[in-house]
Amino acid sequence: MLYSKLFGKTSKTVSADEESINAQYLIRGGFIHKQMAGVYNYLPLGLRVLTKIQNIIREEMNAVGANEILMPSLTQEESYKTTGRDNMEILFRTEGPSGAKYVLNPTHEEIVTPLVQKNVFSYQDLPLSVFQIQNKYRNEPRAKSGILRGREFNMKDLYSFHTDETNLDEYYEIMKKVYHKVYERLGLGKITLLTYASGGAFSRYSHEFQTLCDVGEDTIFVCEKCNIGINKEIIGEQTSCPECGNVDLVEKKGIEVGNIFKLRTRFSDAFGFKYLNAQGVEQAVEMGCYGMGPSRIMGTLVEVFHDDNGIIWPESIAPFQYHLIVLGKEDETFEAAQKIYNSMTAAGKEVLFDDRREVSAGAKFADSDLLGIPTRLIVSKKTLVQNAVESKLRATGQVEMLDLTKLL
Amino acid sequence: MLYSKLFGKTSKTVSADEESINAQYLIRGGFIHKQMAGVYNYLPLGLRVLTKIQNIIREEMNAVGANEILMPSLTQEESYKTTGRDNMEILFRTEGPSGAKYVLNPTHEEIVTPLVQKNVFSYQDLPLSVFQIQNKYRNEPRAKSGILRGREFNMKDLYSFHTDETNLDEYYEIMKKVYHKVYERLGLGKITLLTYASGGAFSRYSHEFQTLCDVGEDTIFVCEKCNIGINKEIIGEQTSCPECGNVDLVEKKGIEVGNIFKLRTRFSDAFGFKYLNAQGVEQAVEMGCYGMGPSRIMGTLVEVFHDDNGIIWPESIAPFQYHLIVLGKEDETFEAAQKIYNSMTAAGKEVLFDDRREVSAGAKFADSDLLGIPTRLIVSKKTLVQNAVESKLRATGQVEMLDLTKLL
Repeated sequence: MLYSKLFGKTSKTVSADEESINAQYLIRGGFIHKQMAGVYNYLPLGLRVLTKIQNIIREEMNAVGANEILMPSLTQEESYKTTGRDNMEILFRTEGPSGAKYVLNPTHEEIVTPLVQKNVFSYQDLPLSVFQIQNKYRNEPRAKSGILRGREFNMKDLYSFHTDETNLDEYYEIMKKVYHKVYERLGLGKITLLTYASGGAFSRYSHEFQTLCDVGEDTIFVCEKCNIGINKEIIGEQTSCPECGNVDLVEKKGIEVGNIFKLRTRFSDAFGFKYLNAQGVEQAVEMGCYGMGPSRIMGTLVEVFHDDNGIIWPESIAPFQYHLIVLGKEDETFEAAQKIYNSMTAAGKEVLFDDRREVSAGAKFADSDLLGIPTRLIVSKKTLVQNAVESKLRATGQVEMLDLTKLL
Repeated sequence: MLYSKLFGKTSKTVSADEESINAQYLIRGGFIHKQMAGVYNYLPLGLRVLTKIQNIIREEMNAVGANEILMPSLTQEESYKTTGRDNMEILFRTEGPSGAKYVLNPTHEEIVTPLVQKNVFSYQDLPLSVFQIQNKYRNEPRAKSGILRGREFNMKDLYSFHTDETNLDEYYEIMKKVYHKVYERLGLGKITLLTYASGGAFSRYSHEFQTLCDVGEDTIFVCEKCNIGINKEIIGEQTSCPECGNVDLVEKKGIEVGNIFKLRTRFSDAFGFKYLNAQGVEQAVEMGCYGMGPSRIMGTLVEVFHDDNGIIWPESIAPFQYHLIVLGKEDETFEAAQKIYNSMTAAGKEVLFDDRREVSAGAKFADSDLLGIPTRLIVSKKTLVQNAVESKLRATGQVEMLDLTKLL
């Protein structure tokens, strides 16, 4: 991609009401643009990052045999009356023709339960899991953390269906591992902790995945032996590590980047969703749900990986792998840089080429630091004399000269 | 994909209120599931088709240098007051915290114009085009044509920005070609006609792309020399072919699968979006918009490509390329079929493997006809004796024996 052709430019300032680092850097870098509080546009750089996060999540869900579907956002209010959740404060409401009452789904239990119900009759149809990557709508009273907490935001939600609690428990453990694998691939593995949180009517705990970060909204108590957390909300009832009994817990801040929950029969009961067991007897279907927010993860990555000059994207989700910068004014240098860009792109490498002529070296470096692409490649008269480009890693600052013959 | 693991099964019947062929076959095949009138769930088979259509469109938009972005669905009503479109009947409305008035975007001129305005200052920043693939919300009084006309539906919308009318005209001609190329790749090339339709305040015509189809909502008059159409809505003022003057026009029905429109300065004027020309003088930005609906195209493909037994997908957007069917009861046959499936999948081929043991050959063939995957491969004791599988093309019925050694 030529920077001169890229929609969305860097800026030095950002509106004073953007308090969060993620909003500041993502807006200044031209990744996102705020529509209104909690609602953002994704510009090309931001959409590239978001799509990469979604694809990693999608691959790992597919790898365990979950079926991808796409459920709508508009739904009849009636479905929420069935589950008794029609009074949730966060519901956005609207009306269809003749005043029919609709809501914008803040989550999809009310949609997925009757949908799966139509396809499951006997124990032979179970277990089964479906997921989607879709927007959610929540009328949050406060939406001040950039893309960490939105009114319209992106979510991967997976729902699993089982014959009995044992089967649900087994799947739940599989999903814990899948979640850890996703965070690992996103570069958040070591600092994202399985965290015990409050359950519901049917289960003692739910589990969150908390990424340790000083600006996190959640307070967790960490067992540093097991590398797991306990959300402050349950510390009254759970004062030691549920896994090793350790009472020497360390208070930290976290951003919730995932949440998994045993719904048990909360929703299948509401919709009368039963299956026939091997003896031909009707049984309630056991359910689990597993959420993970790509847009929130994108914000978390910025909160975790940045310095005073800008973002430091992990390789796996960086918008581009290389930021090619040409210095000087000579046509020959620009032509050489263009050739390098063409060769690298033809070889399938993701390169953002800062081809601007009128911009100073200092301004290009500042933009490059802000955008946070992992490897900066500098082409100048000086490097070309050595038949080389200068490479600098955004994360470590490590500089080396790369031989052009090898690079191409 | 194993059919036994696929979420969404075929059914022989469909609710009587589904009048359209696309809804009947897509629901019976397990591609989609109706949430309510005009709102559908996409099951795995349907989502695969939709994604392929989106990707073809995306590739062609990228190929002409358009930048992909993603704009939100929730937007402040105020933006529509600015353009005087806040009274459109099709607007879905909702409220944010403290009663702030929001709408769900039925199209995105009100979002994209101020967004691009923030990034364009001088003639050097133009021309520029951005597109997105995003849902639209329209409170349609009637929504009875399956996924041809939805209240929540998927759309590719591209917006272009220019210094002057000549530049807009040039780009508009480029987009006509791009649109034809997309329909070509979707298998609709020959029957999709550029059609003159009513313009607006600023231009004499807009152009639709109409796919000839007896169930189409639009009536068009076709010049069979030029292969273009004239929408009935303008036939009063335009009674001959605008390209060759031919008055011998043939009345046909069409489904509008795309619409391109010169907005001129309708929206840039409303938002005060100007640029500085080379002489430093402020000028209004000229705009074009270019819509194409992936979900409507999916419905159109079914309306056009089907027979009495089901759908006949074109290769480019079929959910799978091969429908592998195993017949008989013997373990050896199933194991052989499983091996063929494994080899083909490992070679990157998209195969749906009907691995059901309890289902008759007749039922499997009926399902296969309904699903419409281009090539059916049959594995049985009989074919294995010949070290072969029987191949049958869904479109032509052509049957041949394929040597297994060659196939793998």
